[in-house]
Amino acid sequence: MTIQKAFNKNEEVVASKKSIRLFVLDCLEKAGCGPEHAQQLADILICSDYRGHYSHGLNRLHIYVNDVKTGGTDVKGDPFIIKEKGATAWVDGNNLLGPVVGNYCMKLAISKAKEHGIGWVVTKNSNHFGIAGWYAEMAVNQGMIGMAFTNTSPCVFPANSAEKSLGSNPICAAAPAMNGDSFFLDMASTTVAYGKVEVVDKRGGKKIPPSWGVDKNGRETFDPKVVLNGGGLQPLGGSEITGGYKGTGLCMMVEMFCGILGGSAFGKHIRQWQTNEKNADLGQCFVAIDPECFAPGFSERLQIFLDDHRQLEPLDESHPVQAPGDPERAHMNMCDEMDGIVYKKSQLAHLQNLAKELGVPMFQLKVVEDPVL
Amino acid sequence: MTIQKAFNKNEEVVASKKSIRLFVLDCLEKAGCGPEHAQQLADILICSDYRGHYSHGLNRLHIYVNDVKTGGTDVKGDPFIIKEKGATAWVDGNNLLGPVVGNYCMKLAISKAKEHGIGWVVTKNSNHFGIAGWYAEMAVNQGMIGMAFTNTSPCVFPANSAEKSLGSNPICAAAPAMNGDSFFLDMASTTVAYGKVEVVDKRGGKKIPPSWGVDKNGRETFDPKVVLNGGGLQPLGGSEITGGYKGTGLCMMVEMFCGILGGSAFGKHIRQWQTNEKNADLGQCFVAIDPECFAPGFSERLQIFLDDHRQLEPLDESHPVQAPGDPERAHMNMCDEMDGIVYKKSQLAHLQNLAKELGVPMFQLKVVEDPVL
Repeated sequence: MTIQKAFNKNEEVVASKKSIRLFVLDCLEKAGCGPEHAQQLADILICSDYRGHYSHGLNRLHIYVNDVKTGGTDVKGDPFIIKEKGATAWVDGNNLLGPVVGNYCMKLAISKAKEHGIGWVVTKNSNHFGIAGWYAEMAVNQGMIGMAFTNTSPCVFPANSAEKSLGSNPICAAAPAMNGDSFFLDMASTTVAYGKVEVVDKRGGKKIPPSWGVDKNGRETFDPKVVLNGGGLQPLGGSEITGGYKGTGLCMMVEMFCGILGGSAFGKHIRQWQTNEKNADLGQCFVAIDPECFAPGFSERLQIFLDDHRQLEPLDESHPVQAPGDPERAHMNMCDEMDGIVYKKSQLAHLQNLAKELGVPMFQLKVVEDPVL
Repeated sequence: MTIQKAFNKNEEVVASKKSIRLFVLDCLEKAGCGPEHAQQLADILICSDYRGHYSHGLNRLHIYVNDVKTGGTDVKGDPFIIKEKGATAWVDGNNLLGPVVGNYCMKLAISKAKEHGIGWVVTKNSNHFGIAGWYAEMAVNQGMIGMAFTNTSPCVFPANSAEKSLGSNPICAAAPAMNGDSFFLDMASTTVAYGKVEVVDKRGGKKIPPSWGVDKNGRETFDPKVVLNGGGLQPLGGSEITGGYKGTGLCMMVEMFCGILGGSAFGKHIRQWQTNEKNADLGQCFVAIDPECFAPGFSERLQIFLDDHRQLEPLDESHPVQAPGDPERAHMNMCDEMDGIVYKKSQLAHLQNLAKELGVPMFQLKVVEDPVL
């Protein structure tokens, strides 16, 4: 079957990581980005799709390409340390691609953790850094606890507010258990991401659950279209009565670690999503902690804790209790079995346009005969 | 009006901090606890009531007294550092009163933050430490960001689980803004605390909101009595569909910082609430971060962020948007105006029994003519 045919149906397709990587590198090169920075962005976008976080992967490639093409994001130079003391450092991201800044900061946090037991690094002047989990995993791969936070453009209506003022500010904390297993929490501080509302809407769904979203005046709505047309997201917990003030507080805590500590844009002063009349100037925070500085046997205990959790009697036998990171692990295993990353047609349609616009060949796709998504 | 009369009605009474403090010290002395440790517990219990967190204040005095009397908590000795490296330390709480352990650890974290920019201290072998905010405030008073976490006895049913396995593991993060203002988040990682369910029940309420609690099999219930009789709490977010897996993840993250890093009891292995057939062996984590290590002007920016937040247009004009810590601030102001701490009769009834049991004079109460709570 040809690619065009696949795109005309809502079929699933699979592409090798290698071919996707080449495509991303081609696109970024055409946009004016050198290979060193482009590779860092390519790796994290692919990792995102591989983990099943499609909203943060190739889905956003055109945004990065546009930021580079228009000069909204710089592609020359390096992030640099403005000041550092002991276990801490303050970094200027130099308006480079988010992953370039994030990789730099997390490496710094890890090296500080090796020396001081912990590293806490905050940057200003950064851009969208993709999934926070990418950076936490860098620490996990060194046997450490990793955490990553970023502020984002306003999309959240705080509890009791008729205005949106906060980003979906993710909280990510991950740690190594035994034999490659891990605790892996990577969550927006909203009940759900915009992507989940979009999915309901695209599938023709007329109703979203409580605590997901609000209309343009901040009133809770169950209509996905109302959320998507000028409304916004609710913090984790939803309304005040169901704990939304706690989600609001967590969202603000992340902003404190990012924009307030870093001296970047913060809160409602961050530029609107997908605009670039001014630099994003995002604030981001990266933490690495060496568990060896505390009680011996960290990974063994974490494994028992994860196993205890997974073995809890489920409410529904067909739906086992999962630990943070388990859904992503299952998705990665599925992709490995398919020998590539699996997409639905609709997820890649916009890349056809991007490929055409940049004069870059689209990557090879293979139709999946038995749907797996 | 006599105290007895006040106790016979559901009146409000006010007591001076000084008289409450003496009472707590008397009770603890009778139980066998020396003044140095007793003072630390007294101060945090009073602070808790003063902030309006009555569930963690005098309300729990009899539990601490019982732990001391039975020898479940030790009252001799000091916490000690087992090992330390750079910005980190691992402490043995020596089974002392939680506030004794917590104060020791937070002081250590602050001194490490002065030297290394951050201090991250984890203890094992601790006991209930009261409100987490007490410790975070110690850092705030030094111009630092403070964080405190503890694990607790199992009371939470994770999303999708038919068994309870996690504590209400609080997350506390606070930071200094301008002129005594602050960001002050101190929250259980559940939608609500047990206390809120009890309040609905005591007032004769038949229904609690969604996401608050479950029955003994983990099924969401709206009946407060079912939660209180063998049921349990839901993590922030409630059920899976409304984000309960995120609250579960946060709850587990706290356990990772406490029991898993500290090598104490953890998760479902922690002793049941109000039992003491074995030591509590709680794990706790204390963090101080010096904002001076990052962008200059931290408190000024934080103040703008807080003011932006408070000035958001509210959904309901009579209910302004509040920042984390604002309800507590309002409560403290109210108590200051009343020149003491305000209680309802039902909140102090159990102390009459405790006073009688220990042969200690009950502290002086003054009836509040115009109710303020």
